[in-house]
Amino acid sequence: MTITEDRPTRIETPRAGDEGCLIVSGNDSPGIVVALSAVLSELGANIVSFDQHSTDLIGGRFFLRTMFRLQDLALARPLLQTALDREIRDKLGLEWRLTESSKPKRVALFTSKTDHCLLDLLWRHSRGELNISVEMVVSNHPDLAEKVRAFGIPYFFVPVENGDKKAAEQEHLRLLNGNVDFVVLARYMQIISGEFIRDVGVPIINIHHSFLPAFIGAGPYKKARDRGVKLIGATAHYVTEDLDEGPIIEQDVVRVSHSDSTQNFVRRGADVERQVLSRAVAWHSEDRVVRDGNTTIVFAS
Amino acid sequence: MTITEDRPTRIETPRAGDEGCLIVSGNDSPGIVVALSAVLSELGANIVSFDQHSTDLIGGRFFLRTMFRLQDLALARPLLQTALDREIRDKLGLEWRLTESSKPKRVALFTSKTDHCLLDLLWRHSRGELNISVEMVVSNHPDLAEKVRAFGIPYFFVPVENGDKKAAEQEHLRLLNGNVDFVVLARYMQIISGEFIRDVGVPIINIHHSFLPAFIGAGPYKKARDRGVKLIGATAHYVTEDLDEGPIIEQDVVRVSHSDSTQNFVRRGADVERQVLSRAVAWHSEDRVVRDGNTTIVFAS
Amino acid sequence: MTITEDRPTRIETPRAGDEGCLIVSGNDSPGIVVALSAVLSELGANIVSFDQHSTDLIGGRFFLRTMFRLQDLALARPLLQTALDREIRDKLGLEWRLTESSKPKRVALFTSKTDHCLLDLLWRHSRGELNISVEMVVSNHPDLAEKVRAFGIPYFFVPVENGDKKAAEQEHLRLLNGNVDFVVLARYMQIISGEFIRDVGVPIINIHHSFLPAFIGAGPYKKARDRGVKLIGATAHYVTEDLDEGPIIEQDVVRVSHSDSTQNFVRRGADVERQVLSRAVAWHSEDRVVRDGNTTIVFAS
Amino acid sequence: MTITEDRPTRIETPRAGDEGCLIVSGNDSPGIVVALSAVLSELGANIVSFDQHSTDLIGGRFFLRTMFRLQDLALARPLLQTALDREIRDKLGLEWRLTESSKPKRVALFTSKTDHCLLDLLWRHSRGELNISVEMVVSNHPDLAEKVRAFGIPYFFVPVENGDKKAAEQEHLRLLNGNVDFVVLARYMQIISGEFIRDVGVPIINIHHSFLPAFIGAGPYKKARDRGVKLIGATAHYVTEDLDEGPIIEQDVVRVSHSDSTQNFVRRGADVERQVLSRAVAWHSEDRVVRDGNTTIVFAS
Repeated sequence: MTITEDRPTRIETPRAGDEGCLIVSGNDSPGIVVALSAVLSELGANIVSFDQHSTDLIGGRFFLRTMFRLQDLALARPLLQTALDREIRDKLGLEWRLTESSKPKRVALFTSKTDHCLLDLLWRHSRGELNISVEMVVSNHPDLAEKVRAFGIPYFFVPVENGDKKAAEQEHLRLLNGNVDFVVLARYMQIISGEFIRDVGVPIINIHHSFLPAFIGAGPYKKARDRGVKLIGATAHYVTEDLDEGPIIEQDVVRVSHSDSTQNFVRRGADVERQVLSRAVAWHSEDRVVRDGNTTIVFAS
Repeated sequence: MTITEDRPTRIETPRAGDEGCLIVSGNDSPGIVVALSAVLSELGANIVSFDQHSTDLIGGRFFLRTMFRLQDLALARPLLQTALDREIRDKLGLEWRLTESSKPKRVALFTSKTDHCLLDLLWRHSRGELNISVEMVVSNHPDLAEKVRAFGIPYFFVPVENGDKKAAEQEHLRLLNGNVDFVVLARYMQIISGEFIRDVGVPIINIHHSFLPAFIGAGPYKKARDRGVKLIGATAHYVTEDLDEGPIIEQDVVRVSHSDSTQNFVRRGADVERQVLSRAVAWHSEDRVVRDGNTTIVFAS
Repeated sequence: MTITEDRPTRIETPRAGDEGCLIVSGNDSPGIVVALSAVLSELGANIVSFDQHSTDLIGGRFFLRTMFRLQDLALARPLLQTALDREIRDKLGLEWRLTESSKPKRVALFTSKTDHCLLDLLWRHSRGELNISVEMVVSNHPDLAEKVRAFGIPYFFVPVENGDKKAAEQEHLRLLNGNVDFVVLARYMQIISGEFIRDVGVPIINIHHSFLPAFIGAGPYKKARDRGVKLIGATAHYVTEDLDEGPIIEQDVVRVSHSDSTQNFVRRGADVERQVLSRAVAWHSEDRVVRDGNTTIVFAS
Repeated sequence: MTITEDRPTRIETPRAGDEGCLIVSGNDSPGIVVALSAVLSELGANIVSFDQHSTDLIGGRFFLRTMFRLQDLALARPLLQTALDREIRDKLGLEWRLTESSKPKRVALFTSKTDHCLLDLLWRHSRGELNISVEMVVSNHPDLAEKVRAFGIPYFFVPVENGDKKAAEQEHLRLLNGNVDFVVLARYMQIISGEFIRDVGVPIINIHHSFLPAFIGAGPYKKARDRGVKLIGATAHYVTEDLDEGPIIEQDVVRVSHSDSTQNFVRRGADVERQVLSRAVAWHSEDRVVRDGNTTIVFAS
């Protein structure tokens, strides 16, 4: 006789309408915490979490993420912004960024033919795990249209014809313009141009199927097999103009052995890729990732 | 500029039509390997892999799994069986079991409302990762019918009405009788009776959402949260009449912290559950798992 | 041709003389962060790190750990204490605890015959990894005296004669009285009495060689082998009167297989035990662990 | 009240005097297993374990490791060798290598000033975990002499004076000549010349403090910190003339975060380095590692 209870995986509402997230960054100096907590306190906000990182004890860069609850946040927002500008920007010379948890970030997912990363994101989204709004899926192949539309999400097939990537990217920009807050390349197998990165104006997250900086570029599993490594990995990173060189958000690995073929590397790697990408997307959408030059601060337990 | 090649995840044919798998077990004695390899060699079989485990140096139990290739295996099978009976069963007193890789094991998946384990198995199956034939999905709830049928697999809704589990189990037996080689409880939230376990006559694999033997029974994530553990896990095991006490096939864990709610335990645990269950199903379907009392030998790299 | 640079592992001074650590806990209410940061700011302290945890959004318990730098902390301490009593204790009803990084916690290590946990702590300490002062090693066996004294640390052999544990514990209390801030049971194979726990008056950390709550009590590796688990673990916890039931500080696991004997479980487990215990000791000594009923808040990245 | 039993970690004798290990490798062909098991069987050997790997189903390379028990192995050895030459070498064109478990491999450990890898190997050896005989420790610094000699092992200080590496390597060869079966570079911070690798005539194992092929060469932790990776690793590999390019034996990783300094990378990495190196040394000493071009077959569960 066996088995367990009937507990539905009802996910609690991740964030209420009155919850805000504030990111502060800049040159470190004394008094930032007290100034910031005073601003929040005066408006009646209750601090839910408070994470801080300084790169050096003296003269370093300062990064802070705080979640707070404030009744009627939308109404109070102008007051809060004024206070932040005055106390944080003008007096302390810091940048700040404020988001409301009730407004999920809008995202476009780019894909080619491989579905594991894409489907995992869509499944997690449908399950309420990700505080995002998936606006569209864009692909250079028509293959996954049906699976995507089954989730109720529009699928745009934008072929790269005769290698004319420029035309395809123009079409991408038309689709994305004003509609999304970030882009996820969920195994999108086309090189993105520097122009596109600049013109799109929102962060782009890519999943690379190796433990970067090992095996940059094409065919990483084949390269890993040839080199005889004992672990393979995946890396989620922000896309920059340098191939596979952008700031790393998350990485993970899985063990392989001499008895695994390259095809097995691909299969086992797929499990790591979807885990790593889903964590990166979750953290980015919750404003847990702050860029610091070519590295990231990730405020995640 | 970024990104990588367009390499479709074409999975190589996992097993050809002429590939066989032989499991031998029983009391250890000298000469088993030579006897067995002679039988295979005389018929012209080529050994692909050969894994052996003895529980003790002297007087222990012996377990062996070998994969071999033999042209026209289906035709040669009677000859092979006769030789195995004579050399392995009669002379050495061992049990043997022979399967052909070209005949995937037939399976029924049982589920309730939670979809992560079920969908992961169906997705892996559709991707060619699992050498199984999913004959049906059986559930005590109608909720997942549409998602399952989208994979082209029949869905049978068998409610447990007024707590009449006996009637439901009779219906299960009618559906399963002769149609499946094993059953997987993919988060099926009903206790299985001892009668059913005996009558169904095929192995049943369950996924328990804890690191057994910790947190046996209902509500393991709540119990884990209350106990303040720093890792949570999942366990795939064969079902026996003793609740959550059957032979363990596979286990894994994930780190949690004080900042994770019970709901977060549920979410993070779901990722481990589906990984652990899919590995257990893969290994069982490839005859890599041999029971030894209440434990298992798992021939997997 | 191979190899690498000659970079000595010089560990940077972990904490300067002017660094303080403040732990605040109690019932959550608005305004704690602003009150606390104001106290620190007024005295000229610079906040280095700031970690907060609330058990619930409303009406929960509040836990905070902040590291700060304050010139001449020892001199400023009375002023700081007065301010904390007034603003944090009296006005907000919270408890606070202040430690100075320049004063490492004093510890006694208890051991029996097994040396892996003990030696690993002594080695890490000698390497400057742990901000502790090892005052003594106490054992019910004489075996490890020489190895311990090679580290320049006194070794007290306190036998339990004719099962007279009471006499031994009286001797322990004489040795410890006023001399240590916490006790670590580094594989000390004697049951500690409730009287001792109360009388010693400082926290006691134990390493249990299983993934609690699985395999409570004696012989956990044998039990794990018999149950056929696929992972074994270790658990560091505070000692309470209930056997192996105290608040868990840290846990970890390692993979085992059917081919591992119980002796192999013991060997592999030893690696996990020393890792887990050393992390627990490091975190406790840096005031990163706060007890919350029978669980812990661990402020560690 | 707490705690556990008094179970000394008595390690069982890893291998009796009559245990042999046979490694066979070469071009795959039918009939190898039956030929080999016949040879062993005819001499009365009892097969304890049997692991095989073929790189391809047809036309690949074949690797096999078998442990067997044979009474009076030393006496029977000439007969066994003759049979292996005839049946395995001459008829099948394969190479074979035979070792006796009762003869532990002799090793020299090379080190500089960093002690964690060296001490961990010596401690495991003293504990009976490694079937090796440590013949000497060689260092270009005198610092660790006392710690090493406390284990009863000779320490030879061979300075590299005025950068005259050639003189030092000549001295190394004099010390090693005929005395060791392999060399371990346990954080030895000197580049080894191609002449030395050829002249020493035994395998050399190195531990590199990164997850190769990432961060080849000097200062890998600094490079890893600068690149912002989220995991750091260590790699044990055989030394070849190409810097950090030799066949990988084992790798592992540990998680790091933005809050870890380079010094913390060094500390956390040290734990991984000693684990990885000790596994590689254990596997090599038990003949579990077979080189296949620039990769390795590792027969380890």
